[in-house]
Amino acid sequence: MARSWSDARQNDLATRYRDVRQLTQAIAAPLSDADATVQSMPDASPAKWHLAHVTWFFETFVLRDHAPRYRPFDPRYAYLFNSYYDAEGPRHARPMRGMLTRPALSDIMAYRAHVDAEMDAVLPHLSPPAQQLVTLGLHHEQQHQELMLTDLLHLFSLNPLEPALFEPRSAQAVDLPGPLHWIEGREGLTEIGDDGRAGFAFDCEGPRHRALLHPHALAHRPITNGEWIAFIEDGGYATPSLWLSDGWAWVQQEGVQAPLYWKPGEQGWSRFGLDGRQPVNPAAPVTHISLYEADAYASWAGARLPTEAEWESAAQNIAPGGGNQFDGSTCPRPYPAAPTDTLKQMFGDVWEWTGSAYRPHPGFRAADGAVGEYNGKFMSGQFVLKGGSCATPRGHMRASYRNFFYPHQRWQFTGLRLAKDL
Amino acid sequence: MARSWSDARQNDLATRYRDVRQLTQAIAAPLSDADATVQSMPDASPAKWHLAHVTWFFETFVLRDHAPRYRPFDPRYAYLFNSYYDAEGPRHARPMRGMLTRPALSDIMAYRAHVDAEMDAVLPHLSPPAQQLVTLGLHHEQQHQELMLTDLLHLFSLNPLEPALFEPRSAQAVDLPGPLHWIEGREGLTEIGDDGRAGFAFDCEGPRHRALLHPHALAHRPITNGEWIAFIEDGGYATPSLWLSDGWAWVQQEGVQAPLYWKPGEQGWSRFGLDGRQPVNPAAPVTHISLYEADAYASWAGARLPTEAEWESAAQNIAPGGGNQFDGSTCPRPYPAAPTDTLKQMFGDVWEWTGSAYRPHPGFRAADGAVGEYNGKFMSGQFVLKGGSCATPRGHMRASYRNFFYPHQRWQFTGLRLAKDL
Amino acid sequence: MARSWSDARQNDLATRYRDVRQLTQAIAAPLSDADATVQSMPDASPAKWHLAHVTWFFETFVLRDHAPRYRPFDPRYAYLFNSYYDAEGPRHARPMRGMLTRPALSDIMAYRAHVDAEMDAVLPHLSPPAQQLVTLGLHHEQQHQELMLTDLLHLFSLNPLEPALFEPRSAQAVDLPGPLHWIEGREGLTEIGDDGRAGFAFDCEGPRHRALLHPHALAHRPITNGEWIAFIEDGGYATPSLWLSDGWAWVQQEGVQAPLYWKPGEQGWSRFGLDGRQPVNPAAPVTHISLYEADAYASWAGARLPTEAEWESAAQNIAPGGGNQFDGSTCPRPYPAAPTDTLKQMFGDVWEWTGSAYRPHPGFRAADGAVGEYNGKFMSGQFVLKGGSCATPRGHMRASYRNFFYPHQRWQFTGLRLAKDL
Amino acid sequence: MARSWSDARQNDLATRYRDVRQLTQAIAAPLSDADATVQSMPDASPAKWHLAHVTWFFETFVLRDHAPRYRPFDPRYAYLFNSYYDAEGPRHARPMRGMLTRPALSDIMAYRAHVDAEMDAVLPHLSPPAQQLVTLGLHHEQQHQELMLTDLLHLFSLNPLEPALFEPRSAQAVDLPGPLHWIEGREGLTEIGDDGRAGFAFDCEGPRHRALLHPHALAHRPITNGEWIAFIEDGGYATPSLWLSDGWAWVQQEGVQAPLYWKPGEQGWSRFGLDGRQPVNPAAPVTHISLYEADAYASWAGARLPTEAEWESAAQNIAPGGGNQFDGSTCPRPYPAAPTDTLKQMFGDVWEWTGSAYRPHPGFRAADGAVGEYNGKFMSGQFVLKGGSCATPRGHMRASYRNFFYPHQRWQFTGLRLAKDL
Repeated sequence: MARSWSDARQNDLATRYRDVRQLTQAIAAPLSDADATVQSMPDASPAKWHLAHVTWFFETFVLRDHAPRYRPFDPRYAYLFNSYYDAEGPRHARPMRGMLTRPALSDIMAYRAHVDAEMDAVLPHLSPPAQQLVTLGLHHEQQHQELMLTDLLHLFSLNPLEPALFEPRSAQAVDLPGPLHWIEGREGLTEIGDDGRAGFAFDCEGPRHRALLHPHALAHRPITNGEWIAFIEDGGYATPSLWLSDGWAWVQQEGVQAPLYWKPGEQGWSRFGLDGRQPVNPAAPVTHISLYEADAYASWAGARLPTEAEWESAAQNIAPGGGNQFDGSTCPRPYPAAPTDTLKQMFGDVWEWTGSAYRPHPGFRAADGAVGEYNGKFMSGQFVLKGGSCATPRGHMRASYRNFFYPHQRWQFTGLRLAKDL
Repeated sequence: MARSWSDARQNDLATRYRDVRQLTQAIAAPLSDADATVQSMPDASPAKWHLAHVTWFFETFVLRDHAPRYRPFDPRYAYLFNSYYDAEGPRHARPMRGMLTRPALSDIMAYRAHVDAEMDAVLPHLSPPAQQLVTLGLHHEQQHQELMLTDLLHLFSLNPLEPALFEPRSAQAVDLPGPLHWIEGREGLTEIGDDGRAGFAFDCEGPRHRALLHPHALAHRPITNGEWIAFIEDGGYATPSLWLSDGWAWVQQEGVQAPLYWKPGEQGWSRFGLDGRQPVNPAAPVTHISLYEADAYASWAGARLPTEAEWESAAQNIAPGGGNQFDGSTCPRPYPAAPTDTLKQMFGDVWEWTGSAYRPHPGFRAADGAVGEYNGKFMSGQFVLKGGSCATPRGHMRASYRNFFYPHQRWQFTGLRLAKDL
Repeated sequence: MARSWSDARQNDLATRYRDVRQLTQAIAAPLSDADATVQSMPDASPAKWHLAHVTWFFETFVLRDHAPRYRPFDPRYAYLFNSYYDAEGPRHARPMRGMLTRPALSDIMAYRAHVDAEMDAVLPHLSPPAQQLVTLGLHHEQQHQELMLTDLLHLFSLNPLEPALFEPRSAQAVDLPGPLHWIEGREGLTEIGDDGRAGFAFDCEGPRHRALLHPHALAHRPITNGEWIAFIEDGGYATPSLWLSDGWAWVQQEGVQAPLYWKPGEQGWSRFGLDGRQPVNPAAPVTHISLYEADAYASWAGARLPTEAEWESAAQNIAPGGGNQFDGSTCPRPYPAAPTDTLKQMFGDVWEWTGSAYRPHPGFRAADGAVGEYNGKFMSGQFVLKGGSCATPRGHMRASYRNFFYPHQRWQFTGLRLAKDL
Repeated sequence: MARSWSDARQNDLATRYRDVRQLTQAIAAPLSDADATVQSMPDASPAKWHLAHVTWFFETFVLRDHAPRYRPFDPRYAYLFNSYYDAEGPRHARPMRGMLTRPALSDIMAYRAHVDAEMDAVLPHLSPPAQQLVTLGLHHEQQHQELMLTDLLHLFSLNPLEPALFEPRSAQAVDLPGPLHWIEGREGLTEIGDDGRAGFAFDCEGPRHRALLHPHALAHRPITNGEWIAFIEDGGYATPSLWLSDGWAWVQQEGVQAPLYWKPGEQGWSRFGLDGRQPVNPAAPVTHISLYEADAYASWAGARLPTEAEWESAAQNIAPGGGNQFDGSTCPRPYPAAPTDTLKQMFGDVWEWTGSAYRPHPGFRAADGAVGEYNGKFMSGQFVLKGGSCATPRGHMRASYRNFFYPHQRWQFTGLRLAKDL
């Protein structure tokens, strides 16, 4: 949860509320009731569930708790659309989210409209703590916007018809980005973590704290598909010495031979995306790779993954709102970067796996109340990813942002940037 | 497949085609796109898949093979909607049927209309073998009508909202049917199996053959819910000596304590059905029980399950089209029978587990061609059920009919009638 | 349990007790403590467990119940060595039998000696019902002798050193047995099931009852390894139309390509046996095949499996004690039969899968008391095998004997004989 | 692998070789062949396997590579007893280690004697790099000594007879250690990691590097059983808010309600140990807890786990060879500490879970060659434990030592010491 707040006027909050909610609707617009209902794997959720769950968040933590006369849209929804807040009572089991053919998508849209109307009415009158919960809810909804996109991608990938959510665009010119440059990072003591200037941060991003950096350099850009193909062709997926032990077990058990959604063909590799199946673009950053794959690639390249502190320290002076992020109008996919010798694509395009386990920052304290379950309880077994992706809503990202996934997961737009010791 | 045929005029076939196809549409009418898409377990299929698969059957075995100018509606559907015919090539994996959010329900309805129009055009001109395939396809579609109902019931049972597909009706008066009467069966040599007089039979129902019956009697009616509650209250589910070894393992592993869809409450047991959650009617036949449960009950009652030959021999003189079967207008559920001392409810209400393994009749030969995969290859590990249920379309049943399920399965309308040695 | 008894004098019973118990010891003689302790899969049991369990049977059902002053060797053994008798109370979980490194093999041998001494003392004084329990216990022990051999074979097969329990013998001359002859079977009404003349039978073998045979013939000998290789080379394991649906799923999931313990090599197929790894003898009956494989072979050969009644009816006039059965001195393995045109190898060599599910004979009643759990509760999901094998102790077999295994199991010496309709 | 070496004279190395090898034999002395053969779970290995594997290490990396005339004891052992060194070729699958009833324990002892004799002969002539491999092999063997003890404990725990490997000792007086004292730790920059002064360290302990400590304090002693019982009685295992999300899933799935080997009884809790089942001593450090449990306890206590750097920094000035470690003569189990207000039991008694993921130290490089697979490839998903336990051979421990296990594992002697922010 947020630890520090801008003194945004309520006006701005209402505008922001409307914008975020509308982007969610825009993502859902092309979906059929069926598209929005099916759960493709336990890790993913149906779009309908995302649409309802983010709404439940406002209904529960804002309207129920801060708008005394609010009547819930449907009292049964609390059971259906709570995600994992134990403090909020029992809930529908996560792997069964796809069984909810009712309520229909149109019911959920009515639910959203109901809550939006109430929010519109109460927003001008909310106390500052309640406003903070609204802000938290909006950042929460942005997270689910990205999950909706990646969960839909996963679902559509399992349909032999390979439907596209977005129109494919005309083929991009392939301008290979040239060799990696190494950009020397800061050394010695530095500060990372949320410093309050972003106006909002999740609880796990703080507190601001000193960190010690050892001599190192970062690659100026992420690894490309073309470089990944070289790794494949050099037997990367068949060389156990490159892999973490758990990673090698995963490769063998799952028969992994390429990034998720890649398929070999007579014309070379293709990949499936929200624009359907397309040829792999060798100039674009590789994506849909697991931490295990990222780590194996780094070993193969004689390098390593950056630590979270190295990455964050380098990113603190870069504006987080630029680059290839999601704004609702174009198909999320990583783009080639122009050749250059400065740090590129730190924000957007692909989430960058770090070598840092997702553990608490020194002095971390979870937020109070049910929203304190937001982050801290996930701090085992996962790794930190930084920088956002082409599917991250623009405006959601910052250097201190900590995304986290298990090392085998790769249905997000995950990629890697190399680092090395100096 | 059919082994013997009435010389039904083509006229009748066209009428019958229209009737069967319309009943399917009627079942699907209240379904949303989402309802029709989700697969609730690997044993079940989405309604949309049933709707398309039965249509693919006509498209493939009739139109493709016997209507030279026929153009497939969509060439990709053969891959999506083949069920298990290895001779027809590769197909979409069964447990992934629920991933097909596209084609939409409306597309499938268009597919049905396309095939129906073609069928309408070609039906008057089909050769007798092709007509037999149409007849087979209609019986096949009737089977899927029942599966649609039971698969939907299973799906809705996993939704905490417990939606009803049919309107609940006003509560039935509970007229307890009185004690069991034992009806002595035929003894010595008899004949069972399809004798051709029904006009159609699946290949597994034949050939007609002699069978030997040992002295025995059948209960005059199925076991009721009220009797089942007595079994529960006597510790039936906690007494290993009553159970088959595999059944006891199943009870313990799954934590089974009552028929499927039953729930205890302050007012006693309730059950979930296509009319939503309702109190258990003690006078109605028990349903949604596994073979293991049926066998344990019989042990508890000092009786046994009938053999297929005993059941079929007794049923041969009863008209199979009467009783409580599905005709599209009322909610399928078992009804109480009037007190009597003759065999009741042999057809309709609940499928009756027999103690006979589903194995070939003496002299059995599978039909030629792809449709020969219809029955014979399932002849291991399953038990025979007889008589149809309240969800079986009226007109589909006959004494020689052999339904088959694994002994742990119980999402069909399965019940039991006791037998005993004399 | 036994339903009929010879009036064997007590003298004979004591001799028989000694003989059976000694054969068990002979099988165990070459085993190390470790060999006797490990459980290679949940279906198998450690040799030590077999040695103790058969002893517990006498201790419990004879000494405890019929020898008032008997003191149990160790009161904890009842918990450790009860197999599945629920009526005898809780017990050590079956898949954990391999954890019992203590008691040591020598302790179990002392347990055996203790019980044998007591049995020796009480045998002359037992009542007839207690004598019947002794007889049952001896047949029970013979069953476990065969299981010890096959469980050891399975264990040793998982050791890369492939140890041999028996000395390999010099290679047998390969005399191919010539083509199959078809022997016409009895038709019409016959009688099968235990008739009391064998002096002992398990409860499931009775009662004697009439059965109806349809016109059929049996192959004069089992299928050989050479014939099986032809099946393999004709693509038998890659042709789904030959297989039961469950069988095909099993083949694909387990990657089955040959009988258990077979391995391809530059010199052709070899097989692992209790005499180590040896070339496959094309003249010997194929063994270590599942019901699924047997059924697929029969389909490939245009034949079918015999029913239990067909097999038993044909075997009733053949002396069951001849042929290649286990007598403790030679390595159990199937032998080639001399060319002939009469029924050969009905007893011994390989268990013959029938197409009959293991279900109760008409009028079956389980024995009273705990020993009634012996057979009846296993009557679902399994198939009947007839005739015994090279690992069945000589003297244990008879025509009415019903062995049973699940259709995927094949670590016993299982083979097949074809049948066909006439 | 070792990064820095003392200039130990070869003399000392030979003595050390003898001592370590003899301690291993002493641990194995009371084992039967069966005890030494069984594998109780995939995470554990049979004692026989440990005995052979550590010997294979010397045979392979020292004798094969540095003693030109060495003949392997048995060429098949390389396949059987390689653990996970992919560079050394294929190997027997880990979960199948318990199938090796042959070679017998006595064969493995002969193997050990054979290698020991050769090592004795070549030790005086080895080059310094080969000596370093001997040293590595001895530390490797010490690790397996501890694993032998804990794997045996796990095996014996699954035997209803609950055998004891060591004599139970007379009950210890229960002197409760009084409340926790908090010992303030160093703040700011410090150095941790192997500095070469210990004479040996595994590759993952280096390089020596600067680390930044935030203001914090450590508890002066580990948490006791008595304190753990208070956690249980306060509902610790039933309060989801105390647990990491993965931990709570683990608690529910496994039904965890107490540390491993604990059992409730009428006289209170007992625990199983190498001295059999004994009452839980409230004064002794709690052990056999997972990281999840340790973390939940810390949450309950309003504290946290120490970081590796905090722990190591505090331990650097404490002699690592003192305390309650394993010397071969007494039963490994945690002992109560005398009341005090300085850091106690940092070495020995129980491994202390840290909150640090097991990831490479800055600048880490794996050792060259096959022995480079020793540590680095395990650096995902596991947590660091520090300080050794009562089962760690005395002489094996140092402050920089990094043990690592998955957060759910608890069959080692694992415990916890609290930390807090200042």
